[in-house]
Amino acid sequence: MRRIRVIGIGTGNPEHLTLQAVRALETVEAVFVLDKGAEKADLVRLRREICERFVPKPYRFVEAQDPERDRAPSDYAAAVEAWHTARAALYEALIERELEEGACGAFLVWGDPSLYDSTLRILERVAARGRLAFAYDVIPGITSVQALAAGHRIALNRIGGPVHITTGRALARGLPPGTGSTVVMLDGDPRFDHLDPDLTIYWGAYLGSPEEILLAGRLGEVGSEIRRLRAEARARHGWIMDTYLLRGPDAA
Amino acid sequence: MRRIRVIGIGTGNPEHLTLQAVRALETVEAVFVLDKGAEKADLVRLRREICERFVPKPYRFVEAQDPERDRAPSDYAAAVEAWHTARAALYEALIERELEEGACGAFLVWGDPSLYDSTLRILERVAARGRLAFAYDVIPGITSVQALAAGHRIALNRIGGPVHITTGRALARGLPPGTGSTVVMLDGDPRFDHLDPDLTIYWGAYLGSPEEILLAGRLGEVGSEIRRLRAEARARHGWIMDTYLLRGPDAA
Ligand SMILES: C[S@@+](CC[C@H](N)C(=O)[O-])C[C@H]1O[C@@H](n2cnc3c(N)ncnc32)[C@H](O)[C@@H]1O
Ligand SMILES: C[S@@+](CC[C@H](N)C(=O)[O-])C[C@H]1O[C@@H](n2cnc3c(N)ncnc32)[C@H](O)[C@@H]1O
Repeated sequence: MRRIRVIGIGTGNPEHLTLQAVRALETVEAVFVLDKGAEKADLVRLRREICERFVPKPYRFVEAQDPERDRAPSDYAAAVEAWHTARAALYEALIERELEEGACGAFLVWGDPSLYDSTLRILERVAARGRLAFAYDVIPGITSVQALAAGHRIALNRIGGPVHITTGRALARGLPPGTGSTVVMLDGDPRFDHLDPDLTIYWGAYLGSPEEILLAGRLGEVGSEIRRLRAEARARHGWIMDTYLLRGPDAA
Repeated sequence: MRRIRVIGIGTGNPEHLTLQAVRALETVEAVFVLDKGAEKADLVRLRREICERFVPKPYRFVEAQDPERDRAPSDYAAAVEAWHTARAALYEALIERELEEGACGAFLVWGDPSLYDSTLRILERVAARGRLAFAYDVIPGITSVQALAAGHRIALNRIGGPVHITTGRALARGLPPGTGSTVVMLDGDPRFDHLDPDLTIYWGAYLGSPEEILLAGRLGEVGSEIRRLRAEARARHGWIMDTYLLRGPDAA
């Protein structure tokens, strides 16, 4: 049976790799990379660096073109669904072609596979198709959320309080009520005008990498500075990945 | 100036350590461990194992008695506050006594320091007291939440949906509305009777360790089995740490 390891690689610092991930990389014969977007080149470069350092030669670095995705769909869930189906067919074909029976391959996932990443959903689909027998397991990695908290040296939660992780898309509808601490990911254009200016924001971009930028403060004071820094950095790099935590005043 | 590294060590598997954590451990002269509770012995043992493997000799393993905490306070926040003040005084004294000027020490934090852990809050307090000059940084680690998701080979979020992380205490008041995926930690006695039996639960105990137990299914079907398994395992080990994810039906 073929074997697939889904490995979380952290968010831009090769030293985020766990010992478990390093050990897993020592067993693989092919590494699959399916990135997309403007950030592609830089993100693929990091994965190559990781492979050069940790995968014993010879190994195959398999880059594939991700199927096209409708970027402004009228029905978001249906568009993602169609895209996942196309990806399942692609993953199946790649695994079958690049790995012999009994061989082991890896998917290197940005951050941790459990957070806003579709690799596991796709592999589950490939398994459900039932055409290809393979085993797979997951090796957790450091998420951008943890890199954000580490950079700011803070806990995400208030004492005993909840942590809500959401997307820029959902935040556009406002902060969910009663959630003291909200982490926002996947926000292509952070607008803070509809939010309480007394919130504290902890913002971070390129977390874990040498280009890391951190900024924190009262939203009403630093919000526009974050937008400025963000636009500038994005123009310079050609892409940006950023995450932020919003918090109301401490109840305690 | 003294230097402190706050290192996330993952949740029971020494291989959860990141390369960054390993590198940090190579620089420390003292390791501080302040655990409490019935699980203490086993959790301290894992930290000792980590130190024996990664900290070059000679180093000091500093175990300290955590100040007593009121376990059934009428005012939860105030009790935690008093406890944190006592801990700040203790940490300050330990750092001053165990590290010379310019020396480096580490706090080994279970999972990641950003999630339901007070180490960073206490160090912030020590710094705010202003009696002891020290620098500190944070090295992220794998959380039990990620170990849970990896064990079940799932993403935490539904496609594009939020993830809510909360405590057993808060869950007793019911699931927060509109949160598709809820992770529950710190639940000393999971009772599922007030929850929708059609929720799917992904449960895990001793995650990352050789004793790991995983169970998933429809809450109405596996809820009582989880309670049984949990009581049994707890009796056998003398302690238990478990985490679970609750999810409604997939909208997609
Ligand atoms: C598709 S999600 C993948 C998240 C990833 N699986 C993780 O565990 O962090 C991409 C989002 O993660 C966040 N992100 C990923 N890497 C980041 C980094 N290095 N710095 C800041 N944010 C990052 C951003 O919010 C970005 O929009
Ligand atoms: C005080 S919190 C610390 C969490 C830790 N900082 C982390 O990142 O996972 C302790 C709670 O974490 C969860 N937990 C920690 N380690 C665990 C493990 N190995 N297996 C299952 N749950 C665990 C349990 O819900 C437990 O009540």
